[in-house]
Amino acid sequence: MTIGDLRASLDQDTLGRQLYECVADLYPICRSITGNGVRETLRRVRHLVPLSVHEVPSGTQVFDWTVPLEWNVRDAYVKNSRGERIIDFRHSNLHVLNYSTPVRKRMSLDQLRPHLFTLPDLPDWIPYRTSYYTESWGFCLSHRQLDTLKDGEYEVCIDSSLEPGSLTYGECYLPGDSTDEVLISCHICHPSLANDNLSGVAIAAHLGQFLGRVSLRYSYRLLFIPGTIGSITWLARSEPVVPRIRHGLVLACLGDAGVFTYKKSRRGDAIIDRAVVHVLRQLGDHEVAEFSPYGYDERQFCSPGFNLPVGRLSRTPHGRFPEYHTSADDLDFVSPAKLAASFAACLAILDVIENDRTYMSRNQKCEPQLGKRGIYHAIGGLAHSPVNEMVILWVLNLADGQHSLLDIAERSGLRFDEVRRAVDLLRDHGLLKEAS
Amino acid sequence: MTIGDLRASLDQDTLGRQLYECVADLYPICRSITGNGVRETLRRVRHLVPLSVHEVPSGTQVFDWTVPLEWNVRDAYVKNSRGERIIDFRHSNLHVLNYSTPVRKRMSLDQLRPHLFTLPDLPDWIPYRTSYYTESWGFCLSHRQLDTLKDGEYEVCIDSSLEPGSLTYGECYLPGDSTDEVLISCHICHPSLANDNLSGVAIAAHLGQFLGRVSLRYSYRLLFIPGTIGSITWLARSEPVVPRIRHGLVLACLGDAGVFTYKKSRRGDAIIDRAVVHVLRQLGDHEVAEFSPYGYDERQFCSPGFNLPVGRLSRTPHGRFPEYHTSADDLDFVSPAKLAASFAACLAILDVIENDRTYMSRNQKCEPQLGKRGIYHAIGGLAHSPVNEMVILWVLNLADGQHSLLDIAERSGLRFDEVRRAVDLLRDHGLLKEAS
Amino acid sequence: MTIGDLRASLDQDTLGRQLYECVADLYPICRSITGNGVRETLRRVRHLVPLSVHEVPSGTQVFDWTVPLEWNVRDAYVKNSRGERIIDFRHSNLHVLNYSTPVRKRMSLDQLRPHLFTLPDLPDWIPYRTSYYTESWGFCLSHRQLDTLKDGEYEVCIDSSLEPGSLTYGECYLPGDSTDEVLISCHICHPSLANDNLSGVAIAAHLGQFLGRVSLRYSYRLLFIPGTIGSITWLARSEPVVPRIRHGLVLACLGDAGVFTYKKSRRGDAIIDRAVVHVLRQLGDHEVAEFSPYGYDERQFCSPGFNLPVGRLSRTPHGRFPEYHTSADDLDFVSPAKLAASFAACLAILDVIENDRTYMSRNQKCEPQLGKRGIYHAIGGLAHSPVNEMVILWVLNLADGQHSLLDIAERSGLRFDEVRRAVDLLRDHGLLKEAS
Repeated sequence: MTIGDLRASLDQDTLGRQLYECVADLYPICRSITGNGVRETLRRVRHLVPLSVHEVPSGTQVFDWTVPLEWNVRDAYVKNSRGERIIDFRHSNLHVLNYSTPVRKRMSLDQLRPHLFTLPDLPDWIPYRTSYYTESWGFCLSHRQLDTLKDGEYEVCIDSSLEPGSLTYGECYLPGDSTDEVLISCHICHPSLANDNLSGVAIAAHLGQFLGRVSLRYSYRLLFIPGTIGSITWLARSEPVVPRIRHGLVLACLGDAGVFTYKKSRRGDAIIDRAVVHVLRQLGDHEVAEFSPYGYDERQFCSPGFNLPVGRLSRTPHGRFPEYHTSADDLDFVSPAKLAASFAACLAILDVIENDRTYMSRNQKCEPQLGKRGIYHAIGGLAHSPVNEMVILWVLNLADGQHSLLDIAERSGLRFDEVRRAVDLLRDHGLLKEAS
Repeated sequence: MTIGDLRASLDQDTLGRQLYECVADLYPICRSITGNGVRETLRRVRHLVPLSVHEVPSGTQVFDWTVPLEWNVRDAYVKNSRGERIIDFRHSNLHVLNYSTPVRKRMSLDQLRPHLFTLPDLPDWIPYRTSYYTESWGFCLSHRQLDTLKDGEYEVCIDSSLEPGSLTYGECYLPGDSTDEVLISCHICHPSLANDNLSGVAIAAHLGQFLGRVSLRYSYRLLFIPGTIGSITWLARSEPVVPRIRHGLVLACLGDAGVFTYKKSRRGDAIIDRAVVHVLRQLGDHEVAEFSPYGYDERQFCSPGFNLPVGRLSRTPHGRFPEYHTSADDLDFVSPAKLAASFAACLAILDVIENDRTYMSRNQKCEPQLGKRGIYHAIGGLAHSPVNEMVILWVLNLADGQHSLLDIAERSGLRFDEVRRAVDLLRDHGLLKEAS
Repeated sequence: MTIGDLRASLDQDTLGRQLYECVADLYPICRSITGNGVRETLRRVRHLVPLSVHEVPSGTQVFDWTVPLEWNVRDAYVKNSRGERIIDFRHSNLHVLNYSTPVRKRMSLDQLRPHLFTLPDLPDWIPYRTSYYTESWGFCLSHRQLDTLKDGEYEVCIDSSLEPGSLTYGECYLPGDSTDEVLISCHICHPSLANDNLSGVAIAAHLGQFLGRVSLRYSYRLLFIPGTIGSITWLARSEPVVPRIRHGLVLACLGDAGVFTYKKSRRGDAIIDRAVVHVLRQLGDHEVAEFSPYGYDERQFCSPGFNLPVGRLSRTPHGRFPEYHTSADDLDFVSPAKLAASFAACLAILDVIENDRTYMSRNQKCEPQLGKRGIYHAIGGLAHSPVNEMVILWVLNLADGQHSLLDIAERSGLRFDEVRRAVDLLRDHGLLKEAS
């Protein structure tokens, strides 16, 4: 089975349900860049896809960075003077400032206030905040709730630990015919946020599951890593692998209702850039952004010393939807249909990558005589359709060993799929050979 | 005499009449890709231009193709039960399906119907149909006539022959100073269709006649060939000639009232492409199409193994006028004025090609002093016209041995003719030399 | 002190006054391509900037040209029959055709008429006319005055001399760290015309004065030369210097109220071209023109044998304002504010040129950890401003030894100044080194 067969057999409804269930299953877990939340997440992803789970000890030097202490939190709350939990980690793990140091104290509201984070402009939502590299503690809550807090004494508790441990990430390697690799990466460090990035995690996990069933030209490497420190750690530990990466995608924010946005690799004209643009153009409205050094782990993959051909596929990009990094990025913000469509777009892109080969027509001088081979007739029922004849003529004309299928699709304005079907037909008739 | 002198002396009215008469003279002949119609056509073209006529035997292998049997038709008709010729080859040679096998039979209308071809959407016109490579017979007629046919017995006769013979084409070689060649090609295989392509045949023939009278930088090769199989046959038999071809044009559909359309060579940026675009821009409204592997014999000239710098000049391109391949492409569809203007455009293009040389200013460092040479004054009456001074300054500034005259015209936005006149003036004053 | 410090300390009002006073001081002098007017002009420029004054004897061969005889004029007038000076050189030096041969004659109006030049369409203004290379004499006057002239006898006097002497030009060389040079050139040959080109002279002189006070990366060469023959003479005498010129600007017409116009060098993509376009884009409305071989001394600097990276900065270009080459190009036509803004634009451009270096991030693989170095905080008060963080990330991402600061600014869409400040910060933190 090939990716093409897989695409043809895909039931979008079923797939959408599976992806959404995966997001919903992972949603309650309190994740961070280290700790048991990541481990539990990877344990569940492992049900879908074979995963090596790596533990990198705190203090390990990775390029200019150091793997931080491991953070875990068991409980966190603020109680009012009547002993009621008015802010409660058990209701939402966003309430605790991610990477908060342990604290257990009584204090006045004024003493507490500098540790409380809200979004005055979005007063109903709890913000998501982190303090990975500066020791601190705090609580996040809705601005509306903050307004209701009365003076008086509060009991503050964060039952967390920040201790030597390890950074955990998952890696799935699916060998293909070639040791050349396609890299798929998603960040797994955000707690209860659905679009950012359980959408990416669910899609990457299912890609791994599906790709495991098909014959692959490239080998695939799927990374489930904490953002920034995770990609830096992986790159530092995987330098021998890096030169094999031919194409790559960072997957993030793929479950919301927005149109697709593709952010190009730093190279700007890599095959992955052209393949994604080609596929998205056929899928309808979309946006293409030039590379910029802000965003997700493409920042590290595209740092100058690596400059990998890795772009990022999203729907609405980070920071451009109000729900971004708030409690409103919840299970209602993502939908089975959009998750399934994102998954299908990924498969369509990989289908291009897998099939983008270069051919030579066996008749370089003048067209071959198609009539005597019954080829016009062979093209489905549309024996006399000029479209199909045009595809065949384009392929024969550009099959000079210099133009890949994607080149042909781009120059002719035809769809990659059409070009590929014509190539298959012509190859079956002995009219094409692969260029060496 | 040069092409420039020729252009200056051209009387468009006389020329238009000559071209139109040539079209009208050739119109009644029943042509096909082989046979006596082609021979008779070449015999008449030979009155205008010296032509080698080649006969290539049926069965000759030419690349992936085989020269077909020769087809000739003497008469063809369908008679009704009263013995009246209701479809009659003598009225229009389009009535017979081109390459019909011989037939002489009586049959019912229902038996006849699968052999009748009409255009339901253009009910007054007879379509032009062929069946070169699948043995078949048939008649073409107007849809309106088909509707009048009554049940009953019909007598069907096609007095044709399909036998070993040869494929005939004409070739005219006009030697110039250089053995580098300009190729002009037109297809001569269509029966009574005026625009497609007696317009091209008449213009090519007259180009040959006129070019025979002038001093030429390039050698010119004019081909009068059946479409597809003719160019394939010529290419297969002329491989040693092919590397000498520096520029080329396929001429087709040049007599209708549409604006010029130039279809670029596969290279897209060949000198012929740039020269034609430059000339058409000055002639007014026109269209430029990128290369595509459909159309006339540019398909073969631009096949990957040749990839010749050959574009196609047309007015309304094939398939974009309703009269295309119907009886309405008749002598009313083309006009002397449009034929003459097409001829003039061809000459203007060849004038660019002939004169596109590269010069070196003898004063590479700083401008030469034009005043002391009286050059401002020398430029016609417009002694102080900034336009003429600008042309001179552009030529001097870009005459660095790297820019051809066409380069200079393109960069400066000036007309090629203006640039050339400035070059002549400066060369006469010893300020330019041709770059080696 | 650097150019940047200089820019920061500039008082535009004071500077505008100084530039305007310089223009006003030089305005009354009768200049030409040779003679005492040029000498007196250079004597005054020398108060601002150290100048070598060169005298090149008449008759010296400079490439295709010959240094002309030296022209001087003491007085010139036309007297009517009552002995009244009706045209008087003492009122405006534009009245005398520049380079007029001496004349002292009585003649009728009809005899005089061929020697009178006016602007019928701009009847109140006196035109500026020259006859450098054809011996002739004449007077320029307003068309309105011409209309009042009555028949009768006139006394004509031009007390001029046209004799072997020399061509005079000034050159200021300001050594910098490198012997690579920046060329600044202005023409000093026009008599009482303020915008064309005392504006350019005043700005060049003050640039010299200010650059003399700062540390320079490049050496600077300022030329105060007569148009055309001056640049040709300088180039002919300075060929060993020419290969050191890395960037250059011709300054002309910089005091009027129009927006900036930059005319690119013949190369079109030289660093000076990109630097000027980058700076002007930030200054607001402006025009960018492609190179053309007409205009001022860029014609010679960009002749094919030199092809120097020299563009031209103007406001409204020559010939595009009606006051051009008339008495209306006077001290009211230029303003202190526009002169000062032009000067500031020149400094901004030179600031880019001086600082356009190429760096290597010391962390080629993955981003450095900025947090641990307190860099976010270090960037002024805007510790969390995404803009500043973005600038830093862009610099780090493109500091690969292949991208200059100007490249980074262009690709990121950021301002050169911002990029440079980020570079300074990162270099201070040891995160960047200059590429070798």
